[in-house]
Amino acid sequence: MNWDSETLSRVIRTAQGQCPADVCVRGCRLVNVFSGKIETVDFAVQDGFIVGWGDYSAEQTIDANGMYACPGFIDGHIHIESTLLSPAQFCAAVLPHGTSAVVADPHEIANVLGMEGIRFFLEATEKLPLDFYFNLPSCVPATPLETSGARLSASDLFSILPHPRILGLAEMMNFPGVLNCFPDVMDKLLLFQKANLDGHAPQLAGLGLNAYLATGISSDHECTSFAEAREKLSKGMTIMLREGSQSKDLAALMAVVDDYSWPNAMLVSDDRHPDDLLREGHMNAIVTRAMQLGMDPVRALTLATLTPARHFGLARRGAIAPGYIADFSLSPSLNPWTPVRVFKNGVEVAREGELLSDQSSWPSAHLPSSPMNVARLSVEDLATPAENGLLRVIGVREGTLLTRKLLEQPTTIDGAIVSDTKRDILKVVICNRYTAGARPAVGFVNGIGLAVGAIATTVAHDSHNLIAVGADDQSILQVLDAVRHTGGGLAIGAAQDGIEVLPLPVAGLMSDRPLAEVVERLESLKAKAKAFGSPLHNPFMALSFLALPVIPELKLTDLGLVDVSTFSFVPLFQAE
Amino acid sequence: MNWDSETLSRVIRTAQGQCPADVCVRGCRLVNVFSGKIETVDFAVQDGFIVGWGDYSAEQTIDANGMYACPGFIDGHIHIESTLLSPAQFCAAVLPHGTSAVVADPHEIANVLGMEGIRFFLEATEKLPLDFYFNLPSCVPATPLETSGARLSASDLFSILPHPRILGLAEMMNFPGVLNCFPDVMDKLLLFQKANLDGHAPQLAGLGLNAYLATGISSDHECTSFAEAREKLSKGMTIMLREGSQSKDLAALMAVVDDYSWPNAMLVSDDRHPDDLLREGHMNAIVTRAMQLGMDPVRALTLATLTPARHFGLARRGAIAPGYIADFSLSPSLNPWTPVRVFKNGVEVAREGELLSDQSSWPSAHLPSSPMNVARLSVEDLATPAENGLLRVIGVREGTLLTRKLLEQPTTIDGAIVSDTKRDILKVVICNRYTAGARPAVGFVNGIGLAVGAIATTVAHDSHNLIAVGADDQSILQVLDAVRHTGGGLAIGAAQDGIEVLPLPVAGLMSDRPLAEVVERLESLKAKAKAFGSPLHNPFMALSFLALPVIPELKLTDLGLVDVSTFSFVPLFQAE
Repeated sequence: MNWDSETLSRVIRTAQGQCPADVCVRGCRLVNVFSGKIETVDFAVQDGFIVGWGDYSAEQTIDANGMYACPGFIDGHIHIESTLLSPAQFCAAVLPHGTSAVVADPHEIANVLGMEGIRFFLEATEKLPLDFYFNLPSCVPATPLETSGARLSASDLFSILPHPRILGLAEMMNFPGVLNCFPDVMDKLLLFQKANLDGHAPQLAGLGLNAYLATGISSDHECTSFAEAREKLSKGMTIMLREGSQSKDLAALMAVVDDYSWPNAMLVSDDRHPDDLLREGHMNAIVTRAMQLGMDPVRALTLATLTPARHFGLARRGAIAPGYIADFSLSPSLNPWTPVRVFKNGVEVAREGELLSDQSSWPSAHLPSSPMNVARLSVEDLATPAENGLLRVIGVREGTLLTRKLLEQPTTIDGAIVSDTKRDILKVVICNRYTAGARPAVGFVNGIGLAVGAIATTVAHDSHNLIAVGADDQSILQVLDAVRHTGGGLAIGAAQDGIEVLPLPVAGLMSDRPLAEVVERLESLKAKAKAFGSPLHNPFMALSFLALPVIPELKLTDLGLVDVSTFSFVPLFQAE
Repeated sequence: MNWDSETLSRVIRTAQGQCPADVCVRGCRLVNVFSGKIETVDFAVQDGFIVGWGDYSAEQTIDANGMYACPGFIDGHIHIESTLLSPAQFCAAVLPHGTSAVVADPHEIANVLGMEGIRFFLEATEKLPLDFYFNLPSCVPATPLETSGARLSASDLFSILPHPRILGLAEMMNFPGVLNCFPDVMDKLLLFQKANLDGHAPQLAGLGLNAYLATGISSDHECTSFAEAREKLSKGMTIMLREGSQSKDLAALMAVVDDYSWPNAMLVSDDRHPDDLLREGHMNAIVTRAMQLGMDPVRALTLATLTPARHFGLARRGAIAPGYIADFSLSPSLNPWTPVRVFKNGVEVAREGELLSDQSSWPSAHLPSSPMNVARLSVEDLATPAENGLLRVIGVREGTLLTRKLLEQPTTIDGAIVSDTKRDILKVVICNRYTAGARPAVGFVNGIGLAVGAIATTVAHDSHNLIAVGADDQSILQVLDAVRHTGGGLAIGAAQDGIEVLPLPVAGLMSDRPLAEVVERLESLKAKAKAFGSPLHNPFMALSFLALPVIPELKLTDLGLVDVSTFSFVPLFQAE
């Protein structure tokens, strides 16, 4: 906020009713996050700020017709990349759901593009009608077991901290590094002592949790049990109750929110897949879910507005009160929260789910490059000779990111292992997309279930190399090539068939097309995968986590097969 | 906090029990301000910070013997000058009561010494075992109707804002200036938009309150009724529940603190007179008072620890939890809170009310000058010729700062008005102590009740000129002269008797002697005033508010008699 004295004086005069306000919202039931009450009031807006409640005359009158008014939602922890949308398309997608601000962790784009990716996010969000704040990704690369597009040191991150929309360091997921005092982790914690330090410490408890907190890390979004959340809260940690597309923890955690602990709790999404975003919305859906699980409606709304604003020190945000930014939505009911009219800085930006803001007038950011240093591969590049012993196979299951270590007899042709669709043991290939001339890594996976064809994606946590799995080498080569030519994205195809692609031109992670279009294309790809025999709800999602070597048990990165239990590389074959 | 990696690593290892802690407090009942519960735990301290709860080995073990442990108290709004103690003596006085941090408004010293006074406070508190934070006085001078020692512009104040212990702007008491958009007030509000903006808005409500809040002012300590506090809280204001020596508002306001509003409430003293400080203590007394009025004990303690820390963004303060500064006290009971052992940064600094910290080792600040540009006065200087009409007399009453406008026939000798002890109409004299050669202002007051002698003081809100009242001119001249020679302070004496003085060498406002000594001397002065006939509990206090032209109805400043209802000067005589 950069007022001059003329603006300040105008606001003061308007608040006293000495001149008409820009907007007056009449007859609403205001959700008061300070008193916990619903108050029937009229309120006025001037220069984008709430100036007060009372009988105001105004240039524009909004008849709320008895609807409830709630402050704009703030998602305190989200990876925008999870929506597959560019920042502008994300903004267009979430505004109609009543979101007015997000605190994002650009972890994915930073793993691809490093500082360039972070700067792109800052630039692309500069003048959008949604307030984007960022915490800087603390773990790029996430592990030494894969090749990422960048390596961000403590000083790299610190160099950009003065930016007014950067709040601090994002989820410190390297909690073993904290507990073991790794020098690069110490550097980050020390340089960010005066900034926000977000945590990520699944199941950390007791003395280990004490040590993690003693560093000044102040929040966690990885709690999955009541006991875990209760211990963390009682030790002063802010608990982000996560209800994402992937992980849904609200039901398990809700009971920790009580009359003492609520100021240190908030609702967050962490991730939001495009189909969920299209069908259910964003924070409105999470708030409604909390109410349906039995949370007091005003408290649920408070945990998506005031408490995240306070945790992150976002001034003048999180309430409808004099001096606060005029971000709010109107809903005919508390439960469900259905934001039929949405206002940002006092201007109506969406109605009945439709964006009113003229998206074509939003400034468009220069799209960053999407690294694709991958040569055209041949069948020979995928050839994998059989060896003595049993083949280590990654076991994928629906509904979990955990994989199993399987040991199988390989199916071979002329001494080379091949995809065996009957036994559902398929070849998976990962190409380092950052280093020219790198050899692809090849492994095998059970559970994807393709009977024909192949799928590929550049969304492959956390380094986002190019990964493909398929029923035969030709199909794999085809989809790899399709993604390669597209510059990043998702693809599906079969050797005897055409290729269908969802291009993700922004770093190979995000589309610059509208949400509905992305979902339509994605659904088409998923339908085709189903037609090709995959039993998974979303085989692209399963594929995108196959290369993440921090989640047990067996994963494949561009550098080879990883046994996560020992955090080390293992050969494809285990000697009998 | 400025840790290096060695310290951070040591803290992390100690928290995990890998090496002995500095201190372990065993068997205490910990007041958990996050959970609202009392938890029986052991906790460890390393490098001045709490590292966690659990079974820790340590160099030093403190057996809490089942006592309660509460975080160090934080007084979110206090004028240190009200204690008549220099910062170091204030520190020595409040530490044994469990106070570990204060947010002070150096309004009084700034009115005397301007920036020099503020810098003195910063320097004098730099290395004391108490954390002093400051908000910058927003109204120096408080009014144009008196001569102060300084005039602080918005840019003067802004120049010192970068100091790490300056939080923002202190109580914006010029609320008419806010509502009427006075340019100097606008400048201050604009320059401090990103900092803390404390309010002071007695009885402001409705649209006026809206306008005040729209500027970003976020707190108020002037509520005196439940309805007032409720409106302010519901509009997002943080309410400082004041229980000072002068104003006691807790009983009236307490009911506004509920399960929704408590994070936006805190307990403060505003002022604390030396006798109260000696006999009752500081925040411990206020917390105990809240409990005795029926507030849940954990909530009362939370409102003196966590909520002020959060309001002012004081990192790692306000709780006993991993990563928090090890400031705490131990009490055998919750109600009353009796801090028998007090720890600051993990070191025991007081026991059973006695300071353990070696006060002689504290750095002593260079005392600032105490302006005393007052010439020796003669009887002629005090001569006040009678005029036609009735004499305007200031009516003082016990227990209120409000005065009445009285109209009386003057008692004269040879055409000059004299103090009339029979009717208790005494001469009062104020000397501008900042401008050499200024003429004293003379007025008359009823209610002080001195039958003989005179009293004088340089504590005279808000400009702190030299003021005296007495039964005869000779006595007045004597006490004025005594204070003048002392360089500031309080004095009492009679022409036929000796003069007794409480020297206040720090700007004429504060003593550099210990609390007990100050109280002993003050009691002696008050006893003498009683012996001289004053019926007031503390006539020096009454005198110190006689020159404050913002409190109705009639006041005398160095520039003359002020009718506060019209905010203008009036002559001594009102024509009949």
